[in-house]
Amino acid sequence: MVLEKIDQLAREWLEEAGNRIFMALEQVNIEVEAKADRNDLVTNMDRATERYFAEKIATHFPEHRLLGEEGYGEEITSLEGVVWVLDPIDGTVNFVEQKRNFAISLGIYQEGIGELGYIYDVVGGEFYFAKRGEGAFVNDEPIPMLAKENKLENALVIINTAAMHKFPQTLAAIKAARGLRLYGAATLEYMAVATGRADAYISANLSPWDIGAGKIIAEEVGAIVTRVDGSEMVITEKGDSFVASPGVHAELLRDYFR
Amino acid sequence: MVLEKIDQLAREWLEEAGNRIFMALEQVNIEVEAKADRNDLVTNMDRATERYFAEKIATHFPEHRLLGEEGYGEEITSLEGVVWVLDPIDGTVNFVEQKRNFAISLGIYQEGIGELGYIYDVVGGEFYFAKRGEGAFVNDEPIPMLAKENKLENALVIINTAAMHKFPQTLAAIKAARGLRLYGAATLEYMAVATGRADAYISANLSPWDIGAGKIIAEEVGAIVTRVDGSEMVITEKGDSFVASPGVHAELLRDYFR
Repeated sequence: MVLEKIDQLAREWLEEAGNRIFMALEQVNIEVEAKADRNDLVTNMDRATERYFAEKIATHFPEHRLLGEEGYGEEITSLEGVVWVLDPIDGTVNFVEQKRNFAISLGIYQEGIGELGYIYDVVGGEFYFAKRGEGAFVNDEPIPMLAKENKLENALVIINTAAMHKFPQTLAAIKAARGLRLYGAATLEYMAVATGRADAYISANLSPWDIGAGKIIAEEVGAIVTRVDGSEMVITEKGDSFVASPGVHAELLRDYFR
Repeated sequence: MVLEKIDQLAREWLEEAGNRIFMALEQVNIEVEAKADRNDLVTNMDRATERYFAEKIATHFPEHRLLGEEGYGEEITSLEGVVWVLDPIDGTVNFVEQKRNFAISLGIYQEGIGELGYIYDVVGGEFYFAKRGEGAFVNDEPIPMLAKENKLENALVIINTAAMHKFPQTLAAIKAARGLRLYGAATLEYMAVATGRADAYISANLSPWDIGAGKIIAEEVGAIVTRVDGSEMVITEKGDSFVASPGVHAELLRDYFR
């Protein structure tokens, strides 16, 4: 089965890429002082990681395509065949400033359907995975299905500042919620919702590689993923993103976004 | 030396208290389903942890006083003698909702001067410590002194929603900054500044136990700790809090808060 082979190799490559990033961070700690140097190193790591995947994919699956942030893949507007959707380092500012709270994100789409999703929080040591129809996992432990009936008043929400500006009604939603959190990495904010650490995450502008894996993993535990207006989120198109547990998604849509 | 004895015992008790909280979280995972039960368990853990410290302190240092969130200590308005300033679980909502991103916070004040500070991120496995004049540490590794000349435009800032409402000029500051982060636990937000993961943290309303340890640790690496208007923060009084690296503190004060 090609998906099994993909899964096996994707895990190997993610582990290797994570190790390389981890070692690069050690270098930053030891050698690189100036902010400009740190920024360069990050850009280099971003590119090197994507190039690593591009070469591996071309070697092992020459018929597959890569949709990646750094442009080593192709211009892709359709999801025919098998497409690897990769963000080599999601949360670049965190990578530079915090040396944590970033992730490698990889989603595998086959004829437009998300089959496998991986988000690897390298420094946090959390490896999120889902296979369509077979559940989601963190470090091989099953992630429980999300509660269906949560309410906004009990919910932590993640709404970034761009979304506050683009959708002013989010301000009232934040007031009605239990609290606001912001972590600065879309993939990990998706995983906060998938693991129940937050009930909703709204972002103003995400790209395919930001959401390719997160959507697969979040939906596998019952999260609802749409645009802010409730319409379908087509992952090849940039735009706003709204992921939440079912009850909070319905409540936010009904009371704030319609 | 009494401070050495205090340090030795404080570490023992923090470790034991952390272990108990960790085991309680396992119980939550296993047994407790309903939110109401989870809330009860948290309240119980808060109280049990503070009571544990109250009893230990009374036994070993009967002349010391305890200033704690749960009221097992005394009504304290002055810092004469030795005062243990304790928050048994800072970040209670995170404790309930996320089972991470909370901390035990302990500051030791002698005649009003902060001598020892401890913040224990139990689930994250990070133990922050400072002794006045001898530097700050995380898991026994020295925390570097903060850069003096950072600028707001390159800075991540942590400004909670209550502070956004109380100080509307923070909104312009957030726009000028590189990004906004929110973690939901004052002690860990202090430590984000102390370790350079953010350059400023502004909160509208903190209590002595929220800041007792954080102030000691942050100041030891060169962070500036004041009220939002730049005046001295007396830790026995509730109120707003503004901790930042030196350059960003000066810039925010000059351009936004004066």
